[in-house]
Amino acid sequence: MNLLDSHDTIRAVVYTGETLRLLDQRRLPFEEIHLDCHSAVDVAEAIRNLVVRGAPAIGIAAAWGVVLEARNLAAAGQAVSAQTLEPVLAHLNAARPTAVNLAWALARMRGVLVRAPQDTVMALTTEAQSIQDEDLAANRRMGQLGAGLISAGSGVLTHCNTGSLATAGFGTALGVIRAGVAAGKIAQVYAGETRPWLQGARLTMWELARDRIPAKLIADSAAAHLMKSGAVQWVIVGADRVAANGDTANKIGTYQLAIAARHHGVKFMVVAPASTVDMATLDGSHIEIELRDATELLSVAGKRTVIEGAEAWNPVFDITPASLIDALVTECGVIEQPDARCMREVFSLASHAPT
Amino acid sequence: MNLLDSHDTIRAVVYTGETLRLLDQRRLPFEEIHLDCHSAVDVAEAIRNLVVRGAPAIGIAAAWGVVLEARNLAAAGQAVSAQTLEPVLAHLNAARPTAVNLAWALARMRGVLVRAPQDTVMALTTEAQSIQDEDLAANRRMGQLGAGLISAGSGVLTHCNTGSLATAGFGTALGVIRAGVAAGKIAQVYAGETRPWLQGARLTMWELARDRIPAKLIADSAAAHLMKSGAVQWVIVGADRVAANGDTANKIGTYQLAIAARHHGVKFMVVAPASTVDMATLDGSHIEIELRDATELLSVAGKRTVIEGAEAWNPVFDITPASLIDALVTECGVIEQPDARCMREVFSLASHAPT
Repeated sequence: MNLLDSHDTIRAVVYTGETLRLLDQRRLPFEEIHLDCHSAVDVAEAIRNLVVRGAPAIGIAAAWGVVLEARNLAAAGQAVSAQTLEPVLAHLNAARPTAVNLAWALARMRGVLVRAPQDTVMALTTEAQSIQDEDLAANRRMGQLGAGLISAGSGVLTHCNTGSLATAGFGTALGVIRAGVAAGKIAQVYAGETRPWLQGARLTMWELARDRIPAKLIADSAAAHLMKSGAVQWVIVGADRVAANGDTANKIGTYQLAIAARHHGVKFMVVAPASTVDMATLDGSHIEIELRDATELLSVAGKRTVIEGAEAWNPVFDITPASLIDALVTECGVIEQPDARCMREVFSLASHAPT
Repeated sequence: MNLLDSHDTIRAVVYTGETLRLLDQRRLPFEEIHLDCHSAVDVAEAIRNLVVRGAPAIGIAAAWGVVLEARNLAAAGQAVSAQTLEPVLAHLNAARPTAVNLAWALARMRGVLVRAPQDTVMALTTEAQSIQDEDLAANRRMGQLGAGLISAGSGVLTHCNTGSLATAGFGTALGVIRAGVAAGKIAQVYAGETRPWLQGARLTMWELARDRIPAKLIADSAAAHLMKSGAVQWVIVGADRVAANGDTANKIGTYQLAIAARHHGVKFMVVAPASTVDMATLDGSHIEIELRDATELLSVAGKRTVIEGAEAWNPVFDITPASLIDALVTECGVIEQPDARCMREVFSLASHAPT
C-alpha cells in the first residue's frame, strides 16, 4: 500500500488530547493555519463558518466537540450525562442542516451517554476515536471498490472537495480517485472549481498537488463540453445525505453534472460512507437544502464582484435523483442503479437512522 | 416605446469623430472608465483583452478600427485603399476566433474598399455607422419577436452578458428580456454568474440594476436546481456564431444549460442578429473554440485562488446543437426547432458568408 499512502498525506481534523485542531479550510490553499477548538461551541462555530466542511469531517468534528464539552464539565466538577450534554448535542446538530453525518455522529455519542458507562469521558473519547477510525477505514475500502469499477486509462471529473479535508482522511470520491490513480486506472483528473466557495479550485487542486496526482481545473460550466470531448468516462462525487431510495444530496452543481453525464453516456458514481445514508428519509424531496447568505455569491475570494444592492439565490446543495446514478459506493459494497429495494437490502432502517 | 427606452440607457462603443471610445468592461461594475482607441491596433488590442466583448460589439468596434486607420493613413498623406488597409483588416480579424461578427463586419468594410468610392474615408465611416445602427435596430426587432414567445408572468434564466454592453445597444438575449419586462411578460430574471470572466455577475447584474429590471444572481451550477424548482420557463442566450444547421457557439456553459433545460421541459431561446449567422460553416464541429489562458481560471477578480503550478482547461465557448434549441430569434424572424433546411430558407449563403 506504499503507493496509496504516498497519495494520502493530509489530516484536517486532529484531536490533540486537549483540543480539537482544525486545518482552517477558509484560508487554504495559500495559508495552512490550524485553529484549536476548546469547546462544543467553538466546534459548532467552526462547522457553521466552514473552517471544517465535508459531510464525514463535520460528523467527526462534532463527535470531538462532545468530548471537549464532557471534559470541560468534568473539570468544573459537574456531572457528565445525557441530561447535561443534551443542549450541547442540540447546538452542534443545528450547525448545518443538509449533511446527515452530523446527526448520525451525535446519535452515536448520545448512545454512549444513554449506556451511562463508569468513565463517561473515556467512553465518549473512545467513541469519537472509533467514528474517526471507522471513517478512514471506510474510505480505504470505498477506494478499492470504486476503483474496481473504472477501466484502465480513464479520465474522471470530480466536484467540490471530497478528500482528506472532507473526511478522516483519504476521502470518499477523492479516495476512489486516489485508489484509481495508484492502481493505474485513472490517467487524468478534472476538478470543477465549485462556485461559490471554490472547494474544487482551492481545496481539491491543493490536495491533488500535495499528493502528486495529475489534475486540471475547469469552470463548473465547462463540464458538458468536457464530456462531449470524450475526455472523461466517469463523474465521481461525494454525498451529504443519501435517502432511502438512493436520491442524493450533494454540493450544488452535482445534479447538473448528473444530467450532463447521462446525456453523454458518461457514468456517474456517488461515493459515501454508510453514515451518509439516511434510511429514515424516504426520498430527496424530504431533504432540507441549505440556503446560505447571498454575499457568498456577490463576492469572490473576499472581493466584491457584483454591484451593490444586487440580489442572489444561493442554495449550496441539490438533489440528484437515484435514476441518474450508475453506482453508489459505500464501505458495505457497490449498489448499481440504486433504488429503494436494493437500498433496503443493504441498509436496515434501525442501524442507520440518525436519531 | 417610453417604457422600453427607460430600460435601455447604456452605450459601450461610441465613435467620437476622432477616436473610438470604449467603456472598459474589465473594470465594471465598480469603475466606469472609458478608453480611447486611436488606431486599428488599439482596437484589436481592446478586443483581445476584453475591454470590449460580445459578438456584435466586437464587429462594430472592428469596423470603427478600420475607419480610424483610414483616417490615420489619409492624415499622413498615404493612399486609403483595399491594398493599404488589407494588413489592418487581417490584424483585426485575428483578434478573437469564435465570434463570426468580427469577420462579417470586416467583410462589409472590405466591400467598401473594393467599390473604391471617391471619398473612401467618408464611405468607410458611413458603413461603420450603418453596421452600428443596423445592429441596434435588429436588437429592437428581436426584442419584440422574442418577447412574443414568452407567456405573461414567466421567469427566465440568462447566461453571460448579451446586453447593451455586448452590442450597439439594447442587446440580443438581454434585449428580449428588456422587451419582455417592458411588456409585462417577464416577472423575474435569473443571471448565471458566468465563470471564469463573471460577465453575468459583473456586467449583466450591473445592466439590469441600471435599467431597474428585477434580477437574481445564481452560481452557474445552480441552474438545473433552479429549473427543477419551476421558477424559469425560458433560458435565453446570445450567440457568437450560428452554423448553417443551427448549431450555436456561445459562452462556455450554454451547452450545459441547454441539456438541463431539455431535461426539465424548459424552453431554450437563442437570440442573435443575422450577422452572427455563418451559412459558410456547415455545423458546429467546424467552429473554432477559443481556448484562453489558464490564469483566467486560476485567479478570480485578479486574486489567485488556486495553488501555484496547477493546470487548468479554459475553453471559453461551447457548441449547443440545434436539436436542443427551441427558438432561434434573428431580426429576420423566429425559427422554431432550427435545422439546415429552415436555416437555408431564411438565410442565403451569399448574403451572410463572412468573406
